[in-house]
Amino acid sequence: MIKVGIIGSTGYAGQEIVRLLLGHKDAEIVWYGSRSYIDKKYYEVFGNMFQIVDAVCMDDNMEELADQVDVIFTATPQGLCASLVNEGILSKAKIIDLSADFRIKDVKVYEEWYGIEHKSPQFIEEAVYGLCEINREDIRKARLIANPGCYTTCSILSFYPLAKEGLIDMNSIIIDAKSGTSGAGRGAKVNNLYCEVNESIKAYGVLTHRHTPEIEEQLGYAAGEELKLIFTPHLVPMNRGILVTGYANLKKSLTYEEVRAAYDKYYKDEKFIRVLDKDICPETRWVEGSNYVDVNFKIDDRTNRIVVMGALDNLVKGAAGQAVQNMNLICGLPETEGLLMAPVFP
Amino acid sequence: MIKVGIIGSTGYAGQEIVRLLLGHKDAEIVWYGSRSYIDKKYYEVFGNMFQIVDAVCMDDNMEELADQVDVIFTATPQGLCASLVNEGILSKAKIIDLSADFRIKDVKVYEEWYGIEHKSPQFIEEAVYGLCEINREDIRKARLIANPGCYTTCSILSFYPLAKEGLIDMNSIIIDAKSGTSGAGRGAKVNNLYCEVNESIKAYGVLTHRHTPEIEEQLGYAAGEELKLIFTPHLVPMNRGILVTGYANLKKSLTYEEVRAAYDKYYKDEKFIRVLDKDICPETRWVEGSNYVDVNFKIDDRTNRIVVMGALDNLVKGAAGQAVQNMNLICGLPETEGLLMAPVFP
Amino acid sequence: MIKVGIIGSTGYAGQEIVRLLLGHKDAEIVWYGSRSYIDKKYYEVFGNMFQIVDAVCMDDNMEELADQVDVIFTATPQGLCASLVNEGILSKAKIIDLSADFRIKDVKVYEEWYGIEHKSPQFIEEAVYGLCEINREDIRKARLIANPGCYTTCSILSFYPLAKEGLIDMNSIIIDAKSGTSGAGRGAKVNNLYCEVNESIKAYGVLTHRHTPEIEEQLGYAAGEELKLIFTPHLVPMNRGILVTGYANLKKSLTYEEVRAAYDKYYKDEKFIRVLDKDICPETRWVEGSNYVDVNFKIDDRTNRIVVMGALDNLVKGAAGQAVQNMNLICGLPETEGLLMAPVFP
Amino acid sequence: MIKVGIIGSTGYAGQEIVRLLLGHKDAEIVWYGSRSYIDKKYYEVFGNMFQIVDAVCMDDNMEELADQVDVIFTATPQGLCASLVNEGILSKAKIIDLSADFRIKDVKVYEEWYGIEHKSPQFIEEAVYGLCEINREDIRKARLIANPGCYTTCSILSFYPLAKEGLIDMNSIIIDAKSGTSGAGRGAKVNNLYCEVNESIKAYGVLTHRHTPEIEEQLGYAAGEELKLIFTPHLVPMNRGILVTGYANLKKSLTYEEVRAAYDKYYKDEKFIRVLDKDICPETRWVEGSNYVDVNFKIDDRTNRIVVMGALDNLVKGAAGQAVQNMNLICGLPETEGLLMAPVFP
Repeated sequence: MIKVGIIGSTGYAGQEIVRLLLGHKDAEIVWYGSRSYIDKKYYEVFGNMFQIVDAVCMDDNMEELADQVDVIFTATPQGLCASLVNEGILSKAKIIDLSADFRIKDVKVYEEWYGIEHKSPQFIEEAVYGLCEINREDIRKARLIANPGCYTTCSILSFYPLAKEGLIDMNSIIIDAKSGTSGAGRGAKVNNLYCEVNESIKAYGVLTHRHTPEIEEQLGYAAGEELKLIFTPHLVPMNRGILVTGYANLKKSLTYEEVRAAYDKYYKDEKFIRVLDKDICPETRWVEGSNYVDVNFKIDDRTNRIVVMGALDNLVKGAAGQAVQNMNLICGLPETEGLLMAPVFP
Repeated sequence: MIKVGIIGSTGYAGQEIVRLLLGHKDAEIVWYGSRSYIDKKYYEVFGNMFQIVDAVCMDDNMEELADQVDVIFTATPQGLCASLVNEGILSKAKIIDLSADFRIKDVKVYEEWYGIEHKSPQFIEEAVYGLCEINREDIRKARLIANPGCYTTCSILSFYPLAKEGLIDMNSIIIDAKSGTSGAGRGAKVNNLYCEVNESIKAYGVLTHRHTPEIEEQLGYAAGEELKLIFTPHLVPMNRGILVTGYANLKKSLTYEEVRAAYDKYYKDEKFIRVLDKDICPETRWVEGSNYVDVNFKIDDRTNRIVVMGALDNLVKGAAGQAVQNMNLICGLPETEGLLMAPVFP
Repeated sequence: MIKVGIIGSTGYAGQEIVRLLLGHKDAEIVWYGSRSYIDKKYYEVFGNMFQIVDAVCMDDNMEELADQVDVIFTATPQGLCASLVNEGILSKAKIIDLSADFRIKDVKVYEEWYGIEHKSPQFIEEAVYGLCEINREDIRKARLIANPGCYTTCSILSFYPLAKEGLIDMNSIIIDAKSGTSGAGRGAKVNNLYCEVNESIKAYGVLTHRHTPEIEEQLGYAAGEELKLIFTPHLVPMNRGILVTGYANLKKSLTYEEVRAAYDKYYKDEKFIRVLDKDICPETRWVEGSNYVDVNFKIDDRTNRIVVMGALDNLVKGAAGQAVQNMNLICGLPETEGLLMAPVFP
Repeated sequence: MIKVGIIGSTGYAGQEIVRLLLGHKDAEIVWYGSRSYIDKKYYEVFGNMFQIVDAVCMDDNMEELADQVDVIFTATPQGLCASLVNEGILSKAKIIDLSADFRIKDVKVYEEWYGIEHKSPQFIEEAVYGLCEINREDIRKARLIANPGCYTTCSILSFYPLAKEGLIDMNSIIIDAKSGTSGAGRGAKVNNLYCEVNESIKAYGVLTHRHTPEIEEQLGYAAGEELKLIFTPHLVPMNRGILVTGYANLKKSLTYEEVRAAYDKYYKDEKFIRVLDKDICPETRWVEGSNYVDVNFKIDDRTNRIVVMGALDNLVKGAAGQAVQNMNLICGLPETEGLLMAPVFP
């Protein structure tokens, strides 16, 4: 039985890790960390956990935690994990960091887009980018996992086969992404109040959203070249779900079958990536509550462009589910353990 | 491995049975019945099931079905199960009927409230009302289960300890219930369109809703007396969830502890009924996706009345979850098998 | 042209007063008060007002305000209006207070339910309860209006004819009310975040909600007797709208026509109260954005009770619309000026 | 007083024309056409109109209608207006057609994208495309107005100054649009049920949506060249609102001020087009219920592209509001009459 500690267990992503691990037969949560709710019963913060979780919220003491657990999840704001981690801790426990602290290899790029100083740049090189379907083997051997962002996971997996096979002009990529509101976190802000979000849609962080360099870096690795793209996130009045609609110029005219073969080459055996049937568009309702990513594409002969689409649950494959998938890999467990629940609809 | 057939598998309740049984280790669905979608892939009707369910929808042939399966779920409109069932079928397979056909013992009351002739009144006596927490022992021995209505389950479980212990005037009961929209089914009706339901709340079926006599009958058994009550359902702009707010006159002045003792007497060991802490009100978000019913009460010394509250997921404990719980009981499996998933929030 | 100042113009009710007065041909807003946004452009707080309102938010200086305007609206938290008002101000400007400060005649009841000391009890007697359809003549002559609460308006108007005509047992009243989320205000609280409210319904303030004594007092005046009732508010995932479902015991058996006659007696000539056709239930979608209250009732011969229903837009007839209606009355303008817009659907 | 008839008055757009004309001081509706609800009271179809509209729904007899009214609105499915219109009718009444029948000048393009034969191609040349801000003078003289599509209005107005001024590569345009659900109409379809739309987002009609050639044609006129673009609509869980996020390659490097000057050149004096302040993104909540279009843009120096954004209410500026604006123009009334209501928030 793997012992798990969660720092930031009272955010939406933290709570989702709790929910998933409750259905995981080889893991046990022994530390519910939450600076905001120290000494409070966990179920008082999340009423769904009444009579399921009896634990009390603990402070974020990573040193002590490392002595007690095998795996530490940090579901915390940017900068916290980097400020706490050290060699001693990493020698005792594996860390799966859901923040952006170790996602970007170039510390200058991180500091520029996030506007904070990186406190542990010495671990960036070692950290493995935890996009399981792409970095599976490196993840198995890692001590420190940089769990990908929600928009990022959806964006990369939607474009990956095209990038890898060199089918598109990498500098022509435009990603128009739409997210449910849980992606904005559980902080008390006027802009996230029910009446402000409901019955509206807006773009935000236009041209400045922090997931941009992360997507560029990872798609750059896939394509073997540097690139710049446009990424526009939108806030949608729903709890969960991310939909990515992406656009790119094809390098040459391609048939459906040719592009489909590229997707199948990388995703055919992937349990959690579903390449949909021809002409079926991904919808977030079909993945809600599950670890699936649904992807598909459509070729526009009129403009010689391709439209790619991807849908996932931002709290599962976009955060907690992928984190658990990473945990399974670094702990030598079956990769799908605890993650095979069907999507919940409606 | 128990073999299961579902008649009406493409309604919301039918699909929820599918979802739950996919996580059930002792049951296997071998027949996805759906008159509307015969020969269509099940995942083409419910995209969440892509790469999870590969089956094709079948016609509703109950005779043939009875030869192939151990348990038949009928998640169909009123009247269908009663029109198909016969001794031959019941001798081969257990039936769990999610419609109202066998819920009401007095066939005249059924025909009056439902406005249709009952086609198999000879099986009404034998049918067991499948409210597991109350009729557990009878269910274990049954061949034909009348799975309770969603409003009914929530209403009965909210009031049951008070009725059983004789604490309230049974003829003073008023039940004001609120339901998510999945309770209205998947039929294409203008009144259930997104724009008609969204941003609105209304009462409907006022004084005439069909769950009224079902609640009266069952609470009557609990109290040992006949009764009449008022039941008012409301449509709420959300997918899932039922909230019951009930009112009754106390027979005498009672303390919190006295009433709490009554609830604990019946529910203390019930896995799926959570009596909340003092002053905590049930909320549907805390039970969504799960088989839990959250109940609580508050005593009004000013008026000597009691307010009871209950919340459940209408598709789980209010339909499919309870049906699976019944299946577990009649098949001699652990009652909670396949039903222990934590509620999904947000 | 009547000059208007609004204290608390950046709450939801304050903004709705702005919206309504923009369509009012005899009123002009000259003071947009807002402690939280002093010196900020009003349209930066509410983007809908871009190029419509060019004003800057001002501090809440009621003394100065009284010199500049004819009517002051206070759309502020409980206690503020009472702490600011004085004879000098009242001698210069009329005040329409949307808080509860002057709604309850018995200052002890106010202090008990609201938990704060009343700073100007000397004006309570003079203040007129601004439920226009009932206190129209007194309002015309008033200097200080206590604008009714949203739940209260809906509850009182739903029951008023029954109380006035003595048709029901006043101590049997139960009011089960449901409100959209704008009623909770624009403060940044976790409980009002989109993901907390969406896909859920709950009761709150059970047996302790502050609108209870206000409803009791006003219905008591109508019935000519003191009474105690139960009032249970619920939070519904929608922006606007209040639905009241009320229950009471009939004093004697009554026909539809008899009760209908009572409603017609008081409401037949009321522009903003619509008594719906027989068997039509009020729905909040049909009043959204307008000053209408839709009411109806249904008699239960089985239990000799009556179910009454009322629907209004909590920000219009439940707050800003009623406030403007009061302004029209005290200023000698046509009562409906600026309030005749049709409900917005969908 | 202008006499108005509406064919298709019981769809969402038709009802919105009714709502707007109720607040119009120079127009009177004398014919509420609706094939589906002939002889039914209009308020029985739309409860918001109770005690406001007393009329009964009439059949769609355009010949008779032309004798009785000055202006006919056709808010009907594609093909109906073209099948009914003739010279006799046009000589008696002006027609404002909200369908696509007369929007596209090349009848072959119409028939290809809409898949139906055009029944009155002889009137296509005469018909004026009713985008008021662009074709104002032609509209004033027209007998037959092709009222633009909702997506189209938002898309064109977002890009128009860039096209007109030659700032972008017209063949690089990508339009990613998001619409509320009222755009899907009031037909009873499973896909538009509350539970199917709520908590989900999807693209639809990818590369095949019928508004594509309409946008291409109109932006082509602006740019003085033919072009091909990609248009991707999405369905969003909200009642009203369209948001367009558009992308294009800049022909050369431009500053904010340069592009802003282009927008100001065309929109500075337009009442209903609001160019937002720098860095403020349009949000549909800020235009709901009003005739405003909010637009803005952001320049990406990294990729030398521009992101344009536009938001409108699909039922107002995207349909009924624009239709009334057209009516005002062809009838010689002030263009803004009946359309100056502030947006409704929240």
